[in-house]
Amino acid sequence: MKNFIKLDDLKDFNRTLSLAFEMKKNMNSYSNIGKNKTLGMIFFNPSLRTRLSTQKAANLLGINIMIMNFNNEAWALEFEDGTKMSGIRSEHVKEAAGVISQYCDMVAIRAFATLENKKNDEEEIVLNNFVKYSSIPVINMESATAHPLQAIADAMTITEYNNKQKPKIVLSWAPHPKALPHAVANSFIKMIKNINAEFIITNPDGYDLDPKITKGVKIYSNQVEAFEGADFIYAKNWCSYQDYGKVLRTANEWMINDEKMNYTNNAKFMHCLPIRRNIVASDQVLDNKNSLVLKQSENRVYACQAILKQLIDDQK
Amino acid sequence: MKNFIKLDDLKDFNRTLSLAFEMKKNMNSYSNIGKNKTLGMIFFNPSLRTRLSTQKAANLLGINIMIMNFNNEAWALEFEDGTKMSGIRSEHVKEAAGVISQYCDMVAIRAFATLENKKNDEEEIVLNNFVKYSSIPVINMESATAHPLQAIADAMTITEYNNKQKPKIVLSWAPHPKALPHAVANSFIKMIKNINAEFIITNPDGYDLDPKITKGVKIYSNQVEAFEGADFIYAKNWCSYQDYGKVLRTANEWMINDEKMNYTNNAKFMHCLPIRRNIVASDQVLDNKNSLVLKQSENRVYACQAILKQLIDDQK
Amino acid sequence: MKNFIKLDDLKDFNRTLSLAFEMKKNMNSYSNIGKNKTLGMIFFNPSLRTRLSTQKAANLLGINIMIMNFNNEAWALEFEDGTKMSGIRSEHVKEAAGVISQYCDMVAIRAFATLENKKNDEEEIVLNNFVKYSSIPVINMESATAHPLQAIADAMTITEYNNKQKPKIVLSWAPHPKALPHAVANSFIKMIKNINAEFIITNPDGYDLDPKITKGVKIYSNQVEAFEGADFIYAKNWCSYQDYGKVLRTANEWMINDEKMNYTNNAKFMHCLPIRRNIVASDQVLDNKNSLVLKQSENRVYACQAILKQLIDDQK
Repeated sequence: MKNFIKLDDLKDFNRTLSLAFEMKKNMNSYSNIGKNKTLGMIFFNPSLRTRLSTQKAANLLGINIMIMNFNNEAWALEFEDGTKMSGIRSEHVKEAAGVISQYCDMVAIRAFATLENKKNDEEEIVLNNFVKYSSIPVINMESATAHPLQAIADAMTITEYNNKQKPKIVLSWAPHPKALPHAVANSFIKMIKNINAEFIITNPDGYDLDPKITKGVKIYSNQVEAFEGADFIYAKNWCSYQDYGKVLRTANEWMINDEKMNYTNNAKFMHCLPIRRNIVASDQVLDNKNSLVLKQSENRVYACQAILKQLIDDQK
Repeated sequence: MKNFIKLDDLKDFNRTLSLAFEMKKNMNSYSNIGKNKTLGMIFFNPSLRTRLSTQKAANLLGINIMIMNFNNEAWALEFEDGTKMSGIRSEHVKEAAGVISQYCDMVAIRAFATLENKKNDEEEIVLNNFVKYSSIPVINMESATAHPLQAIADAMTITEYNNKQKPKIVLSWAPHPKALPHAVANSFIKMIKNINAEFIITNPDGYDLDPKITKGVKIYSNQVEAFEGADFIYAKNWCSYQDYGKVLRTANEWMINDEKMNYTNNAKFMHCLPIRRNIVASDQVLDNKNSLVLKQSENRVYACQAILKQLIDDQK
Repeated sequence: MKNFIKLDDLKDFNRTLSLAFEMKKNMNSYSNIGKNKTLGMIFFNPSLRTRLSTQKAANLLGINIMIMNFNNEAWALEFEDGTKMSGIRSEHVKEAAGVISQYCDMVAIRAFATLENKKNDEEEIVLNNFVKYSSIPVINMESATAHPLQAIADAMTITEYNNKQKPKIVLSWAPHPKALPHAVANSFIKMIKNINAEFIITNPDGYDLDPKITKGVKIYSNQVEAFEGADFIYAKNWCSYQDYGKVLRTANEWMINDEKMNYTNNAKFMHCLPIRRNIVASDQVLDNKNSLVLKQSENRVYACQAILKQLIDDQK
């Protein structure tokens, strides 16, 4: 594996999962493989879980870490080619990525969708330019269209709590006051193809995700119908894909609550966090023992360890 | 000790002081007790001494550190229970504390008083919610009403520079252009009960601290009278407690200067820093050899080492 | 060496260069000399290369690092003596430097020129006050008038790519939309005196640097004439020194492009970065194999290691 930008970069999804579980069993088992290695962590957006779990994973493997919040600690970056850089952007990604490549052995980057321009977001301007101009492996800590580290942690969590041959897993849209990216939902859908499950998506009209990604997946516009008999409910808000970046509705009929969970097969509740309580899901759902949200976040550490180990191994 | 939120959490104040002095004698003496431990440091407010001394103390004990400035690096936190989170706060402390607990073995938090709502500040909304929802020990790096790490460092400093059976120690209010919290003064008063001293407070009318905390302590409204024969002057500004959060006066008659220090028994001068020169105390007082302000800050490292060691020992 | 504030602080420039090359040959060769040492890194301005290369250098030597962005993480600092501190600045450098000295064994500081007041900038208010009130070595990570770590890296790069007895080296002013400090240019000029070279500066009228620094150096106001037969072109913008802090021209006739590079002896192109593409130099120049800009930034690590090692050795 040269970079970890998307799930497809993995040579073997199941081997990655096994490795992550091995890390979970003994998180200090590879504490020396990072000796004399340095991981750069570059943030263009806020982060709690991703920042701390990546840092923890690197620490556990003995990797040195250098963190930068690009927005306020470094220079504003230019990503377009051939520009006359006379504005506020004082450094080009060509130089920034080149420089970071000389000080680090790997670089992890968080750069959310702007939700202003679908084409730019889908081209993953920030992440792909770092890949293009870096001479070291690049790790996606959530980009415009994907959050693969979250998806691996989610796969671990489903594996741990599933007790069926073929569980029913529902990805449910939920309300949110702000426009949110599609990254988590996209990677969840791609991940689920590696799991033997009956998978459906439920979202209101106008909220269908990128059809290239949801191809072959049933989409219900009736949330309750979708929940029937479900073993896992994965809640997530996203903004409109068709009417790109728009919030089409904020009414809370789609909020996930006990009443709706009652239609399920005593389903586990999942969310990537941060979650707005009593907007996306009710307190009752989140405080219920069936909520796995903290288990998911715990697994972020081991998911990241599994990725870092593979990148180190493949650099040799 | 489960958490270190206030001085009362200490099993034994004097044992803590001895441990801190042991650290000072050889600050590398417990350099392995933090192996495979991680301390999260969470800041909601600026910090110089507390940040660096806590980080240094953790380093000296071999503890890994992960620092986050919550205000600009993470998500805005909600602390109220049952809220419909439709505003700017996108993550609840329930999740944030739960998540941090999975990546860290201890978490240190700085969250100043807002000085807007006495009830909220006294309930220590931020700190107590972190205690409530964390499954790991919580350390107070200055909260709305207490700064116990500072108080231990102050106790060390007084012990080192006292040469009397029962010194006279005066906590003196001093002017400041801005409204400041009561945390340092509160913890100093609580700490001093462990020291054999004649202790008095002096402040202008309207500036009496929380009577529950000053109970039994003589309060002089005549600063010069209070200073007479003093061995230690501890200067600190605080805003009004009764007229909560208000600055009632900014005139500098209460500034501590040489003229006033002349009334003392060649007293040592103390302040927790940062200090506004020629407002709280004059250059002459601060640059005098009797000023202990840098000694206090040095002792912050050992005070913190003593706390971290006890928390690690008690987790076993 | 007590501090590393300017190139003149070096006992021996060539020995420093040799040490830096030794580090480059085996960057882990002194990985234990920093054991139990702590480097404080204090930023008043943005930084990418300097921050990461200094951090990397310290890591390689086994030095603990504590980083602070003073502008948003600490208290606003006062630098004037005798002030009544009633404004927004709540801590004096006397205390801040004193405190940092107790937690760190060395402190590195970045504090750019304000370009508002020539006298203040030339007095290096920030850096010199830290030197004055610190009891530990101070390292310049770019101050108002000097960037000596960059100059050492530049000397390494010239040494590596020079194949002549006496190369012709040209420092060329280049356009920029904003007013930039003189630090890099100043240190480059001082460094070049240690190198056997024909050295000239070229800049438009009104852009002559401090005559105390350029004394004895030929200054051409005709850029093309200056470039003729050059072996190295070092590009840099700076604001007017005479009309201090002003941008006198923004037209791009001084931009460095292929046409101008054709006048040289197939010259190597150098710049300290960040660089505005197609303003300071064209894409063609920067993407040409003769561009050494990434080599310069790589050498920043070894230059810094050489400085840190000398400071540690000289503290013994």
